[in-house]
Amino acid sequence: MSHFLKEHIQEIVTLSDDEFEIIQSFFVKKRFRKRQFLIQEHQHVHEIFLIEKGILKSSFIDTTGKEHILQFAASNWWISDFAAFFKQESSSLAVDCIEDTEVYSIAYEDLNILCSKVPVMEHFFRVKSNFGYVALQQRILSLMSKSAKERYEDFIKQYPGFKDHIPKQLIASYLGVSRETLSRLY
Amino acid sequence: MSHFLKEHIQEIVTLSDDEFEIIQSFFVKKRFRKRQFLIQEHQHVHEIFLIEKGILKSSFIDTTGKEHILQFAASNWWISDFAAFFKQESSSLAVDCIEDTEVYSIAYEDLNILCSKVPVMEHFFRVKSNFGYVALQQRILSLMSKSAKERYEDFIKQYPGFKDHIPKQLIASYLGVSRETLSRLY
Repeated sequence: MSHFLKEHIQEIVTLSDDEFEIIQSFFVKKRFRKRQFLIQEHQHVHEIFLIEKGILKSSFIDTTGKEHILQFAASNWWISDFAAFFKQESSSLAVDCIEDTEVYSIAYEDLNILCSKVPVMEHFFRVKSNFGYVALQQRILSLMSKSAKERYEDFIKQYPGFKDHIPKQLIASYLGVSRETLSRLY
Repeated sequence: MSHFLKEHIQEIVTLSDDEFEIIQSFFVKKRFRKRQFLIQEHQHVHEIFLIEKGILKSSFIDTTGKEHILQFAASNWWISDFAAFFKQESSSLAVDCIEDTEVYSIAYEDLNILCSKVPVMEHFFRVKSNFGYVALQQRILSLMSKSAKERYEDFIKQYPGFKDHIPKQLIASYLGVSRETLSRLY
């Protein structure tokens, strides 16, 4: 039995042992090494991932070949190309590992079956989707209206403890500033 | 009985007449005139709004006093400061009417009670939250990596039929370009 998975879900809903037995049977534990991809661009997105250990990023490459980082994620966060997953379309984003990673994955059809078999999971995923929305809204406001210094402060607040685990080049890419500008913000 | 509300919900879930009776009792119909605010900045956000008629925008004012438009919304869309609503914090955004508007509103506590009384509504709101996430992810990708011309094309795709109902000044603000740049994109 995965204590991590149970505790993660129980932060939001209370589960009986029977419910958790069912829930657990829908998740698959997977391990990835640093630099491995969980999702590559332009592919069908089958799964979403709950991170037990590791640090990952979701990013996209523009037409000039430049990488833009949408989000970082670590233990207790979910990551995927959620837009592609929800719409069951091919991915715009790539998701890869900044450190060795362990995740629990659940497939699209399984998520819907799980929600009908264990109704509290519908509530759990509604709340999680709302939290995801909140993080994106904050990211947009930060991108549209804040200075590089304020965006860096938002990053520190949004990702406490991440700073020393993420190469500076990637933090600069997340903030949309050059490596030189970032070094002035530290 | 509101056919609009029932049809809107039934795009995602099937409802019995009894279920819809309960659902309807949780919503309040409200009317606003052009330029009226549904949400003002720095206030507690009690409600989310389903638009029956009208066009609205959500926007925020940066420290220099400049307005940035996050989203437009019309019939069959939901609008609020969702981040503030979900976290029950005060709003960063303002929501106001570009045209005379009719909405159905539901309050935070009522939404949670409704979801426990009529469980299909938990599914309905999970799907809606996922769609909201998708729209924001597309908005971020557009903002971070696309040219003004591509952002304008995204706007046309995202908001079919809106172009002729929204003052050009507001479209320019949504795209993050000047009024002059916008006129070259038309």
